[in-house]
Amino acid sequence: MVSWEETGSNFRAALQAKIPPEWQLSGVSKEAEKPRNILPLFHRCGLLTERELEITEIEDATALLAKVHSGSWTALEVVSAFCKRAVMAQQLVNCLMDIDVEGAMQRARELDAHFASTGSPVGPLHGLPISLKDLTKARGFHHSFGITAWAGREDDEDAVVVQILREAGAVFYVKTTMPQTGMALETVSNVWGTTLNPFNTDLCAGGSSGGEGALGACRGAPLGVATDIGGSIRAPASFNGLYALRPTSTRFSYAGNIVAVGGQIAISATVGPVGHSIRDLELFCRVSSDFRPWLHDPAVVPKPWIPVEAPRKTSIGVMWWDEVVMPHPPILRAMKSAVEKLKLAGHEVVEFKPYRHQHAWDITFPLYFPTGGQEMREFLASSGEPMIPSVSKFLESAKCLSVPELMHYQREQKAYRNEYFKHWNATATQTSSGRPVDAILMPSMASAAFPHHHLPWWGYLSTWNLLDYPSVVIPVTQVKPDDIKDAAYQPVNERDADNYDLYDPVLFDQAPVSLQLVGRILEEEQLLAVAIAVDRAIKTEWT
Amino acid sequence: MVSWEETGSNFRAALQAKIPPEWQLSGVSKEAEKPRNILPLFHRCGLLTERELEITEIEDATALLAKVHSGSWTALEVVSAFCKRAVMAQQLVNCLMDIDVEGAMQRARELDAHFASTGSPVGPLHGLPISLKDLTKARGFHHSFGITAWAGREDDEDAVVVQILREAGAVFYVKTTMPQTGMALETVSNVWGTTLNPFNTDLCAGGSSGGEGALGACRGAPLGVATDIGGSIRAPASFNGLYALRPTSTRFSYAGNIVAVGGQIAISATVGPVGHSIRDLELFCRVSSDFRPWLHDPAVVPKPWIPVEAPRKTSIGVMWWDEVVMPHPPILRAMKSAVEKLKLAGHEVVEFKPYRHQHAWDITFPLYFPTGGQEMREFLASSGEPMIPSVSKFLESAKCLSVPELMHYQREQKAYRNEYFKHWNATATQTSSGRPVDAILMPSMASAAFPHHHLPWWGYLSTWNLLDYPSVVIPVTQVKPDDIKDAAYQPVNERDADNYDLYDPVLFDQAPVSLQLVGRILEEEQLLAVAIAVDRAIKTEWT
Repeated sequence: MVSWEETGSNFRAALQAKIPPEWQLSGVSKEAEKPRNILPLFHRCGLLTERELEITEIEDATALLAKVHSGSWTALEVVSAFCKRAVMAQQLVNCLMDIDVEGAMQRARELDAHFASTGSPVGPLHGLPISLKDLTKARGFHHSFGITAWAGREDDEDAVVVQILREAGAVFYVKTTMPQTGMALETVSNVWGTTLNPFNTDLCAGGSSGGEGALGACRGAPLGVATDIGGSIRAPASFNGLYALRPTSTRFSYAGNIVAVGGQIAISATVGPVGHSIRDLELFCRVSSDFRPWLHDPAVVPKPWIPVEAPRKTSIGVMWWDEVVMPHPPILRAMKSAVEKLKLAGHEVVEFKPYRHQHAWDITFPLYFPTGGQEMREFLASSGEPMIPSVSKFLESAKCLSVPELMHYQREQKAYRNEYFKHWNATATQTSSGRPVDAILMPSMASAAFPHHHLPWWGYLSTWNLLDYPSVVIPVTQVKPDDIKDAAYQPVNERDADNYDLYDPVLFDQAPVSLQLVGRILEEEQLLAVAIAVDRAIKTEWT
Repeated sequence: MVSWEETGSNFRAALQAKIPPEWQLSGVSKEAEKPRNILPLFHRCGLLTERELEITEIEDATALLAKVHSGSWTALEVVSAFCKRAVMAQQLVNCLMDIDVEGAMQRARELDAHFASTGSPVGPLHGLPISLKDLTKARGFHHSFGITAWAGREDDEDAVVVQILREAGAVFYVKTTMPQTGMALETVSNVWGTTLNPFNTDLCAGGSSGGEGALGACRGAPLGVATDIGGSIRAPASFNGLYALRPTSTRFSYAGNIVAVGGQIAISATVGPVGHSIRDLELFCRVSSDFRPWLHDPAVVPKPWIPVEAPRKTSIGVMWWDEVVMPHPPILRAMKSAVEKLKLAGHEVVEFKPYRHQHAWDITFPLYFPTGGQEMREFLASSGEPMIPSVSKFLESAKCLSVPELMHYQREQKAYRNEYFKHWNATATQTSSGRPVDAILMPSMASAAFPHHHLPWWGYLSTWNLLDYPSVVIPVTQVKPDDIKDAAYQPVNERDADNYDLYDPVLFDQAPVSLQLVGRILEEEQLLAVAIAVDRAIKTEWT
């Protein structure tokens, strides 16, 4: 029998072999020679042509599609440029677990031929390279779920989301890393190693869709598909300066994406986009809905996508912190700046008091692991690989529930959903319109990207999974040297002290800082419209 | 401490005392003097005036509302007539557990005063008496859930459905019986006794909304609200010649309706209308949706009601039986007649093969009782009352699951949902349009109303709860003396033999026979439109 170490080593070697020799980075891939922020290397290393830099650094997928659909760029040169940049990213931050340059180029040639002969694209995403996460099945690729024993399993079907994007003209070229078992907010596994944060390689890329985050930050993908059951779309987006949407779990199809604990139905995983603009998130939603996924998956609500205009004036509830763990100084700076700019833009901002977020976590944790993580322990045991440190620490207190205990937590979840709903509705007394706030603006986490192997506080993210509210991540700023620690702050509990102790502006230097905008169940159209207004206000330089 | 027998007796006496003396039936209430079919007594007993007969026997709620909203009838005379007929029904078939004549009359007077002063109704249901089930909370009433220990508990709030109907102008006047614990397809409890079938009092009224069924059959309510987690809307409607809709569980709000096993989330109970026409079912849905229940309950999908025209030509999948229990002869006659008439009306009829309905039940049963019915046993133990025979027999094989076992059944449910969905989609190969069938026409149960204390096969109903598909019940015919047993039939299993042995056209004489039309998740508009077309075809006399 092959040891887990050898299995991992073999898979990494096989992945490395898929990188065309002419795209191998020499020198810079050695740890000692890499700067903490590897992003400037894409320009500095000389491997990308001017045209390739122009293509990969275009504003967003929407702008890219306009170039391809107008005939300015061919699908082939676009796909080729992103393939090249993605494998460069892989060599710098270890963000991929499968690569198919040849298949992608072939598909791009077919699309170009179609365009040349018909004069029109095959669909709204004609020629758009889209990166997929390890656990999302797509024919021609394989998956591992970050587990050695599963590594190399072939994708025997297209997930519904892949089917949709493929029909719309997207081109798949890479699959990205995720952590062992998926239940981590960083991306570390015994098969693929550790995915680094491109802005600061001493920090993690977030998780579980950390490969997507790092690749996007490197401009190795114009758009990616990620999944989220506890923050796995939002943490990586937030840590890598990307926009992302965690939709309501019943809005799009999760079918064909692997799950860790089958049969757990209290908190559902959801598929969503990670990209470079809110209009790209909307593009993903529109294309997905136009395909009518409810005809392909009974778990999807039949609800057409009805675009909403960005409002001139929105009413935003501001949650400065969750009353469990105080965010680090750069996060608070981002919040303060956002609130000021929202007011300058004429939006209404009211205080939103968090509703029992520690209680939410006390319900969420046992619902994630009703069997105490038994399945995960068994998956790992089958190859003998050890748990990664953060998962091991996380699962320490997980125990197999009895059914009456599970029923108790599910009743508590139901009650909490009802209470939070009323709590939100009650903001109607605070707004000038007499209607509840349109969205909640809050930190996406209590820190920017954290150091490898750290187990952070999940509450900022997972509360919305427990409630199944959609949420958008909006990048705002980066950690700066003068984001110094508030020496007077007195942590209110142990988790808070942990997070406080972790902070150091030198350690976190340049890490992206993002905020989260939370909307109401199945109202993704409204949320994205408000997000556009908020993003516009935040990005404006008010002089 | 008061014994459970005494408690029940006290509650029954208190209920009896709420019947105005002038509406007491003399003589006919004694068992020996009652005919098996008590329905002719409403005319024969002389208690109802011509006007009251005209009001209570009007076609349906829609027609009644036209009379009230045009000023032809006052709310007071309508409410008074239905109060009177309802308490008469109570004396004949024991279908009520709370009565509020005075409150209802008072509300009717207020509505009339509003109409007189403004010239317009307060809402679309202005003046419509609506009956509610025991477990639906409505201020001014109480509930028992059919459990002695709970009897007399005051309703401390309006359920969301009650709030909606109240705002729309409905008048609440009675609450109807349900069986002990709600998990029975007949209506028997130690508190309220046994609800009889008005067409044939040797038979049950169905359950768990049996009081609604019996009251509707007696024309003691123009429209009722019922609930369904395993057939509780559909069995009583089917056994009492009424129309009914079991909507998808996330379409309308269940908030404010009591549940037996809190925290069980795999199969959800749902609220739906029971009435005298499909257009009344549509009225209930439209009024409920226009209230936007998703603003009042986070479990409701935000999906406006978009009426669909009844199609000229539908494509119907016919499921003659579920391959577990063969329906009795009158049910098969109804199926055959319906299919012939559908063809005569120009609709397309294709065979629909049931997909593993025994397997569905093998998943459904443990999901209903994940704790083995522990809560129910505890509720009953607290007063010392015994289980009713059918619940006792039903729960015999229920056992408390382990969490891994529950996860197993929930995985099986998910797989079954996916498989049934594909199975339905595959009918596209059988239809002339190339689209899947619009609906499935099938028996609503394997028998008409059955004798008291019998435990029937739930599969015809509960499969759709497991899948969460909406379903409409359509009354078709009644059992006739020449619906004789097929002596050649060889039962295929024990359940089938039980059902076969039960049948006797004399025993079942005059019992209503109904069919079920099943639609697709959250597509209640389409289902009701198809139901109108099917009902029209079935009701037409093709000469």
